Amino acid sequence: MGPRWGTRAAVAPGNALRPEDIALEVQDAAKKPSAEIAEYALRLGDDGLVLAQRLGWWISRAPELEEDVALGNIALDQLGHARSFLSYTAAAFSNPDGTAQTEDDLAYWRGEEDFRCAQLMEQPNGDFARTIARQLVVSVYQFELYQRLQYSSDPTLAAIAAKAVKEVDYHRDHASQWVLRLALGTEESRRRMIDGLKLTWPYVEELFDQDELFERLAEAAVPPASLRPGFDAFIAAILDEADLELPQTPRVSGGGRHGEHSEHLGYLLAEMQVLARQHPGASW
Amino acid sequence: MGPRWGTRAAVAPGNALRPEDIALEVQDAAKKPSAEIAEYALRLGDDGLVLAQRLGWWISRAPELEEDVALGNIALDQLGHARSFLSYTAAAFSNPDGTAQTEDDLAYWRGEEDFRCAQLMEQPNGDFARTIARQLVVSVYQFELYQRLQYSSDPTLAAIAAKAVKEVDYHRDHASQWVLRLALGTEESRRRMIDGLKLTWPYVEELFDQDELFERLAEAAVPPASLRPGFDAFIAAILDEADLELPQTPRVSGGGRHGEHSEHLGYLLAEMQVLARQHPGASW
Repeated sequence: MGPRWGTRAAVAPGNALRPEDIALEVQDAAKKPSAEIAEYALRLGDDGLVLAQRLGWWISRAPELEEDVALGNIALDQLGHARSFLSYTAAAFSNPDGTAQTEDDLAYWRGEEDFRCAQLMEQPNGDFARTIARQLVVSVYQFELYQRLQYSSDPTLAAIAAKAVKEVDYHRDHASQWVLRLALGTEESRRRMIDGLKLTWPYVEELFDQDELFERLAEAAVPPASLRPGFDAFIAAILDEADLELPQTPRVSGGGRHGEHSEHLGYLLAEMQVLARQHPGASW
Repeated sequence: MGPRWGTRAAVAPGNALRPEDIALEVQDAAKKPSAEIAEYALRLGDDGLVLAQRLGWWISRAPELEEDVALGNIALDQLGHARSFLSYTAAAFSNPDGTAQTEDDLAYWRGEEDFRCAQLMEQPNGDFARTIARQLVVSVYQFELYQRLQYSSDPTLAAIAAKAVKEVDYHRDHASQWVLRLALGTEESRRRMIDGLKLTWPYVEELFDQDELFERLAEAAVPPASLRPGFDAFIAAILDEADLELPQTPRVSGGGRHGEHSEHLGYLLAEMQVLARQHPGASW
């Protein structure tokens, strides 16, 4: 399916990948995203931003120093993807006072109902096994997504995805290794891994929900439902290797893509936004 | 996951720098550190470990997304240095049960009185300006230190320092730029920068305290007092450029290098150690 979407954007270091470059490039009106593409980029950006906030908590709190570093790096990767997507989204809008909107305006000045992350991203870290269960789901989903999005008809989305897929490939490997280690470790670690998956599974379905945005986006985006077979196959293989069963917990109602969130997002945003809001303008 | 910034790429992978390599290499009895060198490495490692824990808090809480990423990267650099130093220290000791000690044993299973960080590292983040003031002091101090330590007569310390100095050079630049931006920004940012320096300065002297360990270490270590002129010169130049005066706040008694800490370290360690202690063995 990939090649049909056109040629993959040639990625040389620094070309339209760094948020700063994206912000510069979209000053050219012809390169501004349409309202639909901006909305799509916002969903992807919010996923990364909120997940990064959750993962950053683990720095110096993981069960091993090596793992502190790994989760910290994954958090920074996610934050990097978020910055790129949000910079692109911001280019479609102006602030009420007429100034150009920035990634920081989007991160620090939106209310909960304007966030477009899937509910999975905002769920609590729980214990380490629960965080790993979430990492497994997110990384397998994002790998399928970015793998395809690098052939988007929108060159900026394609370039961001082409960089992100390499990093997410590592995240997927990291999560898979930990699932195996915990599931095949001690009785206690196995029990925790099973619980972590059970707590995570109700939020899986929402990742693949489609809405009419995708009809309007056509070949710029990847329809979420089309990612499901690849996701299912990878998850089935890992769970099989780990001698685990697919959790059967029913889905939550979801709705994160339309601003319906669990009670956890409000607290997360309060922490994330407090400093920027106390000191508007960020340079004090 | 690729270089975060230019300096990283310059470091060839795998040459006795990664904590894993150090742990392997010191299985050769001839390469184990002496008790004195282990104590010295412990001081350097604890500085990085405790500072990383403080800095990690800023991920997704800084006033700009770009700054989240910068402080997150600095935290991970510090954690990386800490892991190397602590792996080296660990090689000098065995656990009570006869097993080889690891970096994780040192990070998660020591009490407050066994930590050897300078008290500056454990001080609260405060507002962003206070964190920047601490970053200025720490990075200028560490740059002077690692710059010299790369010529240590101990090859492992020299190798760790040779890698660390490149990263700390960036940290120093980062802190300097922010001091200028805040001091020369708005009235509010300038007031906060002055307050941040005032709160930080009582902890500066301790960094340069000497004790008899340095007589025994001879050319393996860098006597802290010898770093003072370089530190003072750099700080004077930055403060001059920022039109700020050197704070005149008196020193605290110090003693971190001998296990005397402020009330803040206990809380920091409780957070850092809780998961590992609940689940000894780390693999559950």
